[in-house]
Amino acid sequence: MSHTAELIAVGTELLLGNIANTDAQTLSRELSALGINVYYHTVVGDNPERLRKAVDIARSRADVIITTGGLGPTCDDLTKTVLAEAFGKKLVYNEEAARRMEAYFRKLHPDTGRMTENNYQQAYLPEGCTPFQNDWGTAPGCGFEAGGVRVVMLPGPPSECGPMFRARAIPFLAGLTDGVIVNRSLRIFGMGESAVESRLREQMNAMTNPTLAPYAKEGEVELRITAKADTEEEARALIAPVEADIRARFGPLVYGADVPSLEAVCLKLLKEQGLTLGTAESLTGGLAAKRFTDLPGASAVFRGGVVSYTDQVKEHVLGVSRTLLEEYGAVSEPVARAMAEGARKVLGCDLAAALTGVAGPDSDDRGNPVGLVYAALAWEGGVHVKAIHAAGPRARVRTVSASWAFDLIRRKLEGLPLN
Amino acid sequence: MSHTAELIAVGTELLLGNIANTDAQTLSRELSALGINVYYHTVVGDNPERLRKAVDIARSRADVIITTGGLGPTCDDLTKTVLAEAFGKKLVYNEEAARRMEAYFRKLHPDTGRMTENNYQQAYLPEGCTPFQNDWGTAPGCGFEAGGVRVVMLPGPPSECGPMFRARAIPFLAGLTDGVIVNRSLRIFGMGESAVESRLREQMNAMTNPTLAPYAKEGEVELRITAKADTEEEARALIAPVEADIRARFGPLVYGADVPSLEAVCLKLLKEQGLTLGTAESLTGGLAAKRFTDLPGASAVFRGGVVSYTDQVKEHVLGVSRTLLEEYGAVSEPVARAMAEGARKVLGCDLAAALTGVAGPDSDDRGNPVGLVYAALAWEGGVHVKAIHAAGPRARVRTVSASWAFDLIRRKLEGLPLN
Repeated sequence: MSHTAELIAVGTELLLGNIANTDAQTLSRELSALGINVYYHTVVGDNPERLRKAVDIARSRADVIITTGGLGPTCDDLTKTVLAEAFGKKLVYNEEAARRMEAYFRKLHPDTGRMTENNYQQAYLPEGCTPFQNDWGTAPGCGFEAGGVRVVMLPGPPSECGPMFRARAIPFLAGLTDGVIVNRSLRIFGMGESAVESRLREQMNAMTNPTLAPYAKEGEVELRITAKADTEEEARALIAPVEADIRARFGPLVYGADVPSLEAVCLKLLKEQGLTLGTAESLTGGLAAKRFTDLPGASAVFRGGVVSYTDQVKEHVLGVSRTLLEEYGAVSEPVARAMAEGARKVLGCDLAAALTGVAGPDSDDRGNPVGLVYAALAWEGGVHVKAIHAAGPRARVRTVSASWAFDLIRRKLEGLPLN
Repeated sequence: MSHTAELIAVGTELLLGNIANTDAQTLSRELSALGINVYYHTVVGDNPERLRKAVDIARSRADVIITTGGLGPTCDDLTKTVLAEAFGKKLVYNEEAARRMEAYFRKLHPDTGRMTENNYQQAYLPEGCTPFQNDWGTAPGCGFEAGGVRVVMLPGPPSECGPMFRARAIPFLAGLTDGVIVNRSLRIFGMGESAVESRLREQMNAMTNPTLAPYAKEGEVELRITAKADTEEEARALIAPVEADIRARFGPLVYGADVPSLEAVCLKLLKEQGLTLGTAESLTGGLAAKRFTDLPGASAVFRGGVVSYTDQVKEHVLGVSRTLLEEYGAVSEPVARAMAEGARKVLGCDLAAALTGVAGPDSDDRGNPVGLVYAALAWEGGVHVKAIHAAGPRARVRTVSASWAFDLIRRKLEGLPLN
């Protein structure tokens, strides 16, 4: 029988927008991996009445309640007090929890090492609960079962919440999990979300397990296949045919599965093939180089880049001939080609990607429209230029243009057609 | 009379932990600045029944309901359908919304420009609502009032949600806030959040109107002064002395008020003084150039940049002497200086900023620690180098390093001490 968890985050700082509820994201991931459904997240402030109401609603629709925050002296152990009361449990002094805290304190303050009164408050836990020792902070967490509901209380700081869940709460929840949920994420570049979605709509609506859901990223689409089964193997077996079908439909538009980004795929391919990379950027102004060097380990293959924002830099640094620039203008197929070839020479790299175009907000002095972009890739003995019409505001045009450069690199290294 | 808002985020990807609910953080900040209370956040999946339950609970405890996500074709406009039904409204075809989407689509796909059927679905809006035109994406939002509750529906993508709230929802909510609320945001670079906060804590705790709240950005602190009064003039009069006090305390660390970023301040100063800029980047790999060219109008002053990720590029493109590179290594004060001077020559710009350092994850071959960075600024007849110890993971080291380069430019152009 399948179980349903509800997450209740306690903290006025969340309601003021001082922080985002990242604990909910962490725990949701863990729970879906355990095959426990999560139907609701709730955030409530440091207010006993409103927390109590949230708990009463949660117990009416979930059989696992996981709270984050509201433990510890600064909030008078609000969460512990309210949940113990809601489930008719006394708070009793837990000698072991107190000793653990004292030990942690001595580590923290070797000089004094003495705890204040309000710290000892934290040693009071619901009667009959399983204390969760906190090796990552002071406030202990705990878990108990009452009225058919399992209650788990975790500290709020992300550096304590996630680790305590994995180390203490998962064993406590053992037995609740039936089966596993496995995700597989296919990344598509080169087709808009609604086009991808309309191609798959019927199929998606017909599917129950696995499910298929598209998520739009900037100029990209992520297709997530989610399967539920008794074992990971069975789940993967459910996913495989769906993945195969999507790959058959979208062919080279699918640039990877469970990969972080286009540029990460390029880095892997360049390393495997022992090739170096350089960039020449006009409209993207360094974005492509920035995105590639965001990746740890980029220095193994990345030589450098030139941001040629003016004709002078195109001419004097990249060696683009003035004749080309005057005849065709900076935003043209021949100049893109010359930028890529020049970058390869100047930077001494195996592959050089070049981008020139109009990012906007205004069209250029030759009247080229916003979004017209030429992406070029030069390699030993060859160069290819692709004309793109990137849509949307400046930031999107720049992002999509850089992605096209990476897609050219990927296609070249995978031996796919460049168009 | 004070109002209470509840945020309902719709999206299974939130319950699976694929993304964090950052929209809730953004909107909570905005709402608290408007003086509207937020008592609960709720997250629910793409499920009509459960969304309906969440809405019924929300209307029982709030008089403003703001939904994020669940608009657009991929989820069958779930949110619009459920909320219209919950408040007894029909969905009617909105000709204007359709035309706006078509226009956006033509911009997006100048070649085809035709919308698919599922896009037209988005033009159906609750009868009598105020449509929120989406200038940041496709799915329009909307607002309506029913049964004493104001309902606001916003798209899920953070790049659309926040801007639409500020541009469309705030006017729609006008009248809920008695009097006016005025924000003034002071930006501080060069001091950590906790140092800034501890200097202001007593003052902040003592203040009620205006209030003063610090927000940490990457390597920066934003101090937001929020005043509530009957008129904007009165509100600004309340803010002025607080701003003056903060400027007196933090001096040149305050780089602007109500400004978007350090680089935007640099662009303004460069334009005013008729000076051009170039960059030479090692560890930041183009991030500084990218951030500067993110700004519309950057081309008026930005000449270009060199991403010199290897010694060869430093030597052959920037003209850094091999002797310097061999004697001091790439991460050194002399090389930073030579990179800045070389960039000025090669790029033909008035000011050139250079960055070299160790972004991590590993220290460099000379054993320089992660986070050691040299930022240099060269101008006609001078050059200054600043050594920085940037803390944190790779991405943060890169961001903070680029910011230091912009801060050197700002200080130079404002005639402030460079240290």
